[in-house]
Amino acid sequence: MDVFEAITNRRSIRAFTPEEVSKEEIEKLIDAARHAPSAGNMQPWEFIVIRDSRTKRKLSVAALNQRFLEEVPVLIVVCANELRSGRGYGSRGTTLYCLQDTAAAIQNMLLTACALNLGTCWVGAFREDDARKILNIPKGVRPIAIIPVGHSAEKPEMRFKRAVSDFVHYETYSK
Amino acid sequence: MDVFEAITNRRSIRAFTPEEVSKEEIEKLIDAARHAPSAGNMQPWEFIVIRDSRTKRKLSVAALNQRFLEEVPVLIVVCANELRSGRGYGSRGTTLYCLQDTAAAIQNMLLTACALNLGTCWVGAFREDDARKILNIPKGVRPIAIIPVGHSAEKPEMRFKRAVSDFVHYETYSK
Repeated sequence: MDVFEAITNRRSIRAFTPEEVSKEEIEKLIDAARHAPSAGNMQPWEFIVIRDSRTKRKLSVAALNQRFLEEVPVLIVVCANELRSGRGYGSRGTTLYCLQDTAAAIQNMLLTACALNLGTCWVGAFREDDARKILNIPKGVRPIAIIPVGHSAEKPEMRFKRAVSDFVHYETYSK
Repeated sequence: MDVFEAITNRRSIRAFTPEEVSKEEIEKLIDAARHAPSAGNMQPWEFIVIRDSRTKRKLSVAALNQRFLEEVPVLIVVCANELRSGRGYGSRGTTLYCLQDTAAAIQNMLLTACALNLGTCWVGAFREDDARKILNIPKGVRPIAIIPVGHSAEKPEMRFKRAVSDFVHYETYSK
């Protein structure tokens, strides 16, 4: 799929069919993620691939009861490895770069999923401490997103977009 | 260009030819950016498009003297609009979501640039207060990246990548 087509066709999917997602498809998403740029090439990302129903149920509760997270074949919990980014860049690494780098990796995954005809959603609303306990995530590694991956059972319209003139400025900030 | 090809072919470019970048090309990058997902569809991004040589020179100094930033046709300074993300999500909005959302928008831009045969680089190392003064950026809007856009004068190799087994975990965090 053309890159611009993937960028514009991607939607946030919250309803899935029971159809499975293959190991090869997950590997393709991970491969896309690892090609994201990162500050100082630190690659400060960790991915936890979850198929276990009990774990998905617990995570859906940690995600403020977003129950669609337990009805999807796979969850990928993305973590920012603060230790890696902090090593070279101190607090700018732990509070900015590792969040940006993991976000770029996630976006690569979402676009690749779209090209593979898989549905995904970027879930940021969850209790990090609960996710940490459920998945045994050590200190210095921070869970920052839960990505459900499955086959879409819905076709959402494009959401409202801000007018370009509202957020593009020339030469200097204009508002 | 195929989305996976763009993801794997993209490189960080720090040397540019003098060839111009058209208004249409910049508009295409912005259009890609605005299709990124964002928490609650807040679209907490602002883009400042800069062609003025004096401004580029000042920004290159603010960016710890990364002089290639003054030798590129266009700089795009990306800002996170903390006011928008904070409105619905408080401190999680201002310190996490708006950084992730703008990062996803940037990654869309970098991939689209790659497909347009333009070179880019994600520059995060700069003094934010200096950039804020140079560009007259108001409080509540935070400059978080400088993206040079031009035609590449180099062909960097792919950087070293961590082994997949080092950062992919199954069911629970494994190290």
